Amino acid sequence: MVTDDLRATIRNIPDFPKKGIVFRDITTLLKDKNAFQNSIDLFYEKYKSIKIDKVVSVESRGFIFGSVLAYKLGAGFVPVRKPKKLPSKTISEEYDLEYGKDKLEIHLDSISQGENIIIVDDLLATGGTMNAACRLVEKLGGNIIGLAFLIELSFLNGREKLSKYQIDSLLKYDSE
Amino acid sequence: MVTDDLRATIRNIPDFPKKGIVFRDITTLLKDKNAFQNSIDLFYEKYKSIKIDKVVSVESRGFIFGSVLAYKLGAGFVPVRKPKKLPSKTISEEYDLEYGKDKLEIHLDSISQGENIIIVDDLLATGGTMNAACRLVEKLGGNIIGLAFLIELSFLNGREKLSKYQIDSLLKYDSE
Repeated sequence: MVTDDLRATIRNIPDFPKKGIVFRDITTLLKDKNAFQNSIDLFYEKYKSIKIDKVVSVESRGFIFGSVLAYKLGAGFVPVRKPKKLPSKTISEEYDLEYGKDKLEIHLDSISQGENIIIVDDLLATGGTMNAACRLVEKLGGNIIGLAFLIELSFLNGREKLSKYQIDSLLKYDSE
Repeated sequence: MVTDDLRATIRNIPDFPKKGIVFRDITTLLKDKNAFQNSIDLFYEKYKSIKIDKVVSVESRGFIFGSVLAYKLGAGFVPVRKPKKLPSKTISEEYDLEYGKDKLEIHLDSISQGENIIIVDDLLATGGTMNAACRLVEKLGGNIIGLAFLIELSFLNGREKLSKYQIDSLLKYDSE
């Protein structure tokens, strides 16, 4: 099965970034040209029949998948970034971290009212980051067609926080 | 001319990130599906006849162009990142900032001896970052076929620092 082949290219790193966490390292997928092609082609299959105007991604790993998908779908690409990285007028949204808060920004002129949008990231964990990205896109009038993730850590229930959206994840992990 | 059309999609932002600097904002190119496609296709034309094993890019904006080019060339993609972002064994290289130093890292197993590599970034300024990326790739035995930039700020002479490499930049700016 294609996704099993893809899963086999992910490197599992115990205790990173801290004790008890198994980090799913996607760099071993990215450097494998066949796995990288497959991952993009699987995303593409999900959206190829829908008119997508813009693909939005959150920095930095999200950029890797989002930009290729934008190119392949013939859509524009819109980066969502950490504060002070985007040089023109932005709007921002806060989201909760384990300790404290962080913020994401998007350019005010990056999306027009009614445009069809997909948001792409490498990982769905608790869903906090993606939820903030969705709020940014909707504030600009974007119509969110779907959220695409390479990896979903199902046991963290990020999907609940994003229940009003169509979610497509290529690889699910049910436990640490 | 194709590159003039491309240049027209770049937004010029005076005094960002500080007084006297004109920031070349590529987000207006990225959100324009035709300009984004053109930029990738122009890169692709330069390398399509050479066997490229890996495309290397520096975070974060470099990822946007590098990953698409890797996909299109049928190559693997290798991220070069700031310290502590890559989870497995890395090597690192320092480079000079205007005030102080910074470091870049690459995974030790990301490139094999003799592989053909291109390194892609959005911007060539003084060349310090790219020079560090080249040293990382060569430490791992990679054979650097070329360095590709969307924008080259020619007046900063980054090319001199990288004179032993083939450099392809799509858009040159001769002054601020």
